[in-house]
Amino acid sequence: MTLIIKPDLEHDRPWRDVLQEMLPERTCRDWDAPGDLGEVEYAFVWNPPPGALRTFSNLKCIFSIGAGVDHLLKDPDLPEGVPIVRMVEPELTQGMTEYVTMHVLRFHREVPTLEAQQRDRVWNELIVPTAPSRRVGLLGFGVLAQDSARVLRALDFDLACWSRTPKQTDSVESFHGADGLDPFLTRTQILVCLLPLTEATKGILNRTLFAKLPRGASLINAGRGGHQVEPDILEALDTGQLAGAVLDVFRTEPLPADSPFWTHPKVTVTPHIASVTQQRSAAEQVAANIRRIEAGEAPHNTVDRALGY
Amino acid sequence: MTLIIKPDLEHDRPWRDVLQEMLPERTCRDWDAPGDLGEVEYAFVWNPPPGALRTFSNLKCIFSIGAGVDHLLKDPDLPEGVPIVRMVEPELTQGMTEYVTMHVLRFHREVPTLEAQQRDRVWNELIVPTAPSRRVGLLGFGVLAQDSARVLRALDFDLACWSRTPKQTDSVESFHGADGLDPFLTRTQILVCLLPLTEATKGILNRTLFAKLPRGASLINAGRGGHQVEPDILEALDTGQLAGAVLDVFRTEPLPADSPFWTHPKVTVTPHIASVTQQRSAAEQVAANIRRIEAGEAPHNTVDRALGY
Repeated sequence: MTLIIKPDLEHDRPWRDVLQEMLPERTCRDWDAPGDLGEVEYAFVWNPPPGALRTFSNLKCIFSIGAGVDHLLKDPDLPEGVPIVRMVEPELTQGMTEYVTMHVLRFHREVPTLEAQQRDRVWNELIVPTAPSRRVGLLGFGVLAQDSARVLRALDFDLACWSRTPKQTDSVESFHGADGLDPFLTRTQILVCLLPLTEATKGILNRTLFAKLPRGASLINAGRGGHQVEPDILEALDTGQLAGAVLDVFRTEPLPADSPFWTHPKVTVTPHIASVTQQRSAAEQVAANIRRIEAGEAPHNTVDRALGY
Repeated sequence: MTLIIKPDLEHDRPWRDVLQEMLPERTCRDWDAPGDLGEVEYAFVWNPPPGALRTFSNLKCIFSIGAGVDHLLKDPDLPEGVPIVRMVEPELTQGMTEYVTMHVLRFHREVPTLEAQQRDRVWNELIVPTAPSRRVGLLGFGVLAQDSARVLRALDFDLACWSRTPKQTDSVESFHGADGLDPFLTRTQILVCLLPLTEATKGILNRTLFAKLPRGASLINAGRGGHQVEPDILEALDTGQLAGAVLDVFRTEPLPADSPFWTHPKVTVTPHIASVTQQRSAAEQVAANIRRIEAGEAPHNTVDRALGY
């Protein structure tokens, strides 16, 4: 009868209050005060300690607070047979589309150069091409990337996407699979990583990949820190292979104070806020899925554990 | 038989070469080498010296290189009866839409706060509302603003516009005329000025207008420097009535090195490059209009001198 909650960030309201309102028939409890473990049927969690979820013997479903589930699948003792649901909610998608659009425009319009000019009080009418001449590549083409593509197309960028399996796309040049990666990278000036973190994508943002981009390309990573080989990013920035990087995620979060990313002149650091799950629409998604499960139906947005997303 | 050219910026190619290619039957001449003044039938100009256009006795049409024509109408000796054509070309519109979208997103996502956090190496997961909760207002709703509205709507901002006369709008809350200005300002958190500069709009961005915005609103001016009462902008920033300003235009351009805007922590200065007329599509527009005039038809995009745009 219990929904147990392990929150991610400090929001305006405690997650427990928001979920309890949406699920009046159910007891919502915080992680640190779970009550009878055998009564816990649902878990709504971010980054639970390994082994912890197994202690709930009657668990019916695990809900990830975020779009990714790598924080769950890394648990070697994750209870088998319990469905895992990733967060798909319109506000999470919305936030990512805003972040991606803003940072693509920022590289496209050469904002770092303009900012340097302002610091030096230089009035130099920098002329840049318009978006149809700028080749943007979306690495990963799931729910989030598809919505970013919608707005980037409205802005008329020359857009391509890469995904593991072929995706039906509307007016976006589509590449897929191992064979499709090189031609995708060769044509991409601004690379946006929105991949799930899996065994197959771990460390994908490395020296070998950067070398396939045209010289002076830019990187936006709003996927996971685990995609990054961080010394390779610094090297590519210092050689000029990458002109700039916007990083929302890191191998270690919070980013340690002595990380060179904080002060690198070509790096924008954001504290894993590219998109944040919004409480109201997330709670609605959880409530709807619990109703489905209680009615004997399969929940929406379940994860394939073998694929990792 | 001559088209005379007074360029705005230094582009990759001289304007004369681009126009001459498009108009092989006509002599294209630079401003400083006009030849026989009586042979000049068309002028393609930016900011000509007052009185200069009157010296061409057979002038059939004046083309502005930019979207605005205030630089022409300020000439008290502007030849009467000669049509004035403002620049409307798809790339100019495209560039402005990119600039407006980027800077609206920048304020919306509180980028200045995130940048300050990076400088201080602070990892603080700033949570901001999504675009549907952010009220953006377009001051002026001509060709440029309407295209910006298209993309801002795709991003789902809560959007309104104000214009002198009523405009038919699709899913944008519309205000107009003197009576409509106050309610438009009251609801606007991010104000984007894309007005033409006329006697009626000169100095419109002043203390009285800022006071009607909600406290902590932001300003983006991609109109004209003449819209700005610049000491009032600084005052509003310093009192916190305005949280930030992005200024692409100034009363004096280039912006003097001793202007406080260069170093103000809440001001982004760009050197009048929000959008730049692109040569190829501009030359196509000029050539098409010359063909219309030679065929006895009125050119497109002519200006009403009394209204000033």
